[in-house]
Amino acid sequence: MSDSPIPALSTWVEVPKTSDFTIYNLPFGIFKNKKLSPRVGMAIGDKIVDLSVLDQEGFFANLFLPEGIFLTDSLNGLISLGKVQTRKIRERVQSLLLEDNGELRDHSARGKVMVTRKEAEMLLPVKIGDYTDFYSSVEHATNVGKMFRDPENALLPNWKHLPVGYHGRASSIVVSGTPIHRPKGQSKSPNMDTPMFGPSRKLDFELEMAFITGKQTRLGDSVSTAEAEDYIFGFVLFNDWSARDIQAWEYVPLGPFLGKSFGSSISPWVVTLEALEPFRTASPVQEPEVLPYLKCDREHSFDINLEVLIQPEGGKASKVCTSNFKHLYWNVAQQLAHHTVNGCNINVGDMMASGTISGTSPNSFGSMLELSWNGSQPLPLDGDGKRAFIEDGDTVIMRGFAEKDGVRVGFGEVKGQILPAKI
Amino acid sequence: MSDSPIPALSTWVEVPKTSDFTIYNLPFGIFKNKKLSPRVGMAIGDKIVDLSVLDQEGFFANLFLPEGIFLTDSLNGLISLGKVQTRKIRERVQSLLLEDNGELRDHSARGKVMVTRKEAEMLLPVKIGDYTDFYSSVEHATNVGKMFRDPENALLPNWKHLPVGYHGRASSIVVSGTPIHRPKGQSKSPNMDTPMFGPSRKLDFELEMAFITGKQTRLGDSVSTAEAEDYIFGFVLFNDWSARDIQAWEYVPLGPFLGKSFGSSISPWVVTLEALEPFRTASPVQEPEVLPYLKCDREHSFDINLEVLIQPEGGKASKVCTSNFKHLYWNVAQQLAHHTVNGCNINVGDMMASGTISGTSPNSFGSMLELSWNGSQPLPLDGDGKRAFIEDGDTVIMRGFAEKDGVRVGFGEVKGQILPAKI
Repeated sequence: MSDSPIPALSTWVEVPKTSDFTIYNLPFGIFKNKKLSPRVGMAIGDKIVDLSVLDQEGFFANLFLPEGIFLTDSLNGLISLGKVQTRKIRERVQSLLLEDNGELRDHSARGKVMVTRKEAEMLLPVKIGDYTDFYSSVEHATNVGKMFRDPENALLPNWKHLPVGYHGRASSIVVSGTPIHRPKGQSKSPNMDTPMFGPSRKLDFELEMAFITGKQTRLGDSVSTAEAEDYIFGFVLFNDWSARDIQAWEYVPLGPFLGKSFGSSISPWVVTLEALEPFRTASPVQEPEVLPYLKCDREHSFDINLEVLIQPEGGKASKVCTSNFKHLYWNVAQQLAHHTVNGCNINVGDMMASGTISGTSPNSFGSMLELSWNGSQPLPLDGDGKRAFIEDGDTVIMRGFAEKDGVRVGFGEVKGQILPAKI
Repeated sequence: MSDSPIPALSTWVEVPKTSDFTIYNLPFGIFKNKKLSPRVGMAIGDKIVDLSVLDQEGFFANLFLPEGIFLTDSLNGLISLGKVQTRKIRERVQSLLLEDNGELRDHSARGKVMVTRKEAEMLLPVKIGDYTDFYSSVEHATNVGKMFRDPENALLPNWKHLPVGYHGRASSIVVSGTPIHRPKGQSKSPNMDTPMFGPSRKLDFELEMAFITGKQTRLGDSVSTAEAEDYIFGFVLFNDWSARDIQAWEYVPLGPFLGKSFGSSISPWVVTLEALEPFRTASPVQEPEVLPYLKCDREHSFDINLEVLIQPEGGKASKVCTSNFKHLYWNVAQQLAHHTVNGCNINVGDMMASGTISGTSPNSFGSMLELSWNGSQPLPLDGDGKRAFIEDGDTVIMRGFAEKDGVRVGFGEVKGQILPAKI
């Protein structure tokens, strides 16, 4: 599938050459601006297509959509229509934006439909039901195991047999641009007799991507790897902010809790599985062989370039990491099949994150924990000091895009600034 | 507060002597029956007070409630009105049910207001946002530590410094009476080279209680122990079904996942904090001293008797455990203060469970894991075999009630039957 050439498309919308939001992409999001209440839009170039206006003007008449489906503050209702419908909506908009199609281009409502992206505020795109975080990068798990457990046996015995994951906090997932206060909490270094309380001194990011589920299951039912992609609507960039000192003291035996739940940030545009199709690629070979319910008949990974930048307050942004989604050992079909194999039910709008996406080279590590090797090797920034962990005022920016045959499908960015701890 | 005598109240409703649902209780729930759509009710004796009919008949006229607040399938909207309003609603109903009050007793709508509980189906009372499970019984944590780690150092170093907890799966929380399929999953005993896949062979219950939050916070804000009870609406019984073999293989290093997420069961009636007030009591003394943010100025525990019964299919129920909520080392104010100290935001309808509530005597242990000491000492049932863990067809029943000066405030029960694994 990924070997077939991408059909060339051109649009009457002016799309800057390096834009993530090409005619091939058309991601869904929720936006508002000074005049417009929250609604569903689709990004193209520097514009947002206001789907609610398209709908009012009758452009979706053949689709028989429920009234007001685009005039809402979350994508959940739209996603619940099912993939057949959401695919038709996306294809209809794509067709309306094509160079040779005059339907919208020459329509009197064109000015009302095409909203300037810069003047819009993006909102959290979905009402998130449950949030799960996996731990699917073998490089990340190995790095962490080397640092905190046994360098000779860095991977735990279960790691290559199942996609390790845990439940996370959904309420504190925020959209890109939302500042996060440095969390306070307990920590205890080995040389202390009792724990101390205060602002985290090891605040970190984790470079992740997350998928949003688009179809529900009933309690007791399972989703196979072959069926899994039917249940995946699309993807976003995900920054799993982590307080390493809080996490280290709390996490045994029941896992991460307050070291994570103070905030996670996502990019606002949901890139559909359909848009990522041309970038489908293989995952790393799995050895030992996995159990039958985790086997896959096809490729379920995507070639998505990822990068992380740190921008000190008032300074310039330095790139600190370059990675790729395809490095992940466990793919999304395996994650979803594993998650539901016990009968756990999923709902529309659940979010499942990948875990930190690290590659093999040191500059591809997806967290400061790995990049600075737990603070022992602070990372130089471009002309502006160095970082062991994230400091107050720093903004962390993550970007992601797929590119092939001159076609680009990107995610934009997720960014967030760290504010000082609240007093 | 708990030393003051409870004022004597009597009602014109016939309430059986052993009923949990006395005039002192009046818990909120969501019910429907063959004729009535889902709505808010309050239990008394063998009846349910249909609050939507009371509202329609003008009995709440002085409270200026939003229209249709009781004609809904969850308590979230009602709880969101705030404690001042929900307390007034409960007090108004209590007053209407008093022996000497003829307003409802002699009203033509009385028959419509008082619904027979037996003919009603109880639904999940709240739309649960995030679900957290604590681990707050020192006896339970010690038992588990003895079995799986080091009998000499059963408690981990962090346990007495913070209320250990983890995020759980909200989607699979179901109301009492919902059957649960035995989960399938991976497990690996120490003598196996590779993991196996199949139905869990160590299916267990955990006797817990959970509180439901009634007020939201913003991301970045914290709730102090002194403020905590303002954020707690009420309590339910909670059975945290657990697959010990799946859990043992998966839980290092990120905590319980599929060993828990196949289902949790709650009792349908939410008993308010106000109803539990007369049963307030002290928690165990905490030593070592806790950090300042975990200190409390008053008692935050309640004297609630708990019991667990196992009923084999077609057989009689055997009581296997008798415990009490007051055994918990960490109280609800400490749990909520800890949960939010890092700025994690809470919403109306979040659920926070206590963790298994074990006492010191072997018959007070709140799980089969402890009662049968990981299966090594199967528990005899009354005239019907014995149990190491839960078998297909077994129904597990948990009950809870507070009692003092002849006044009883109970939770009813949470029960669930285990069905064979799906093929």
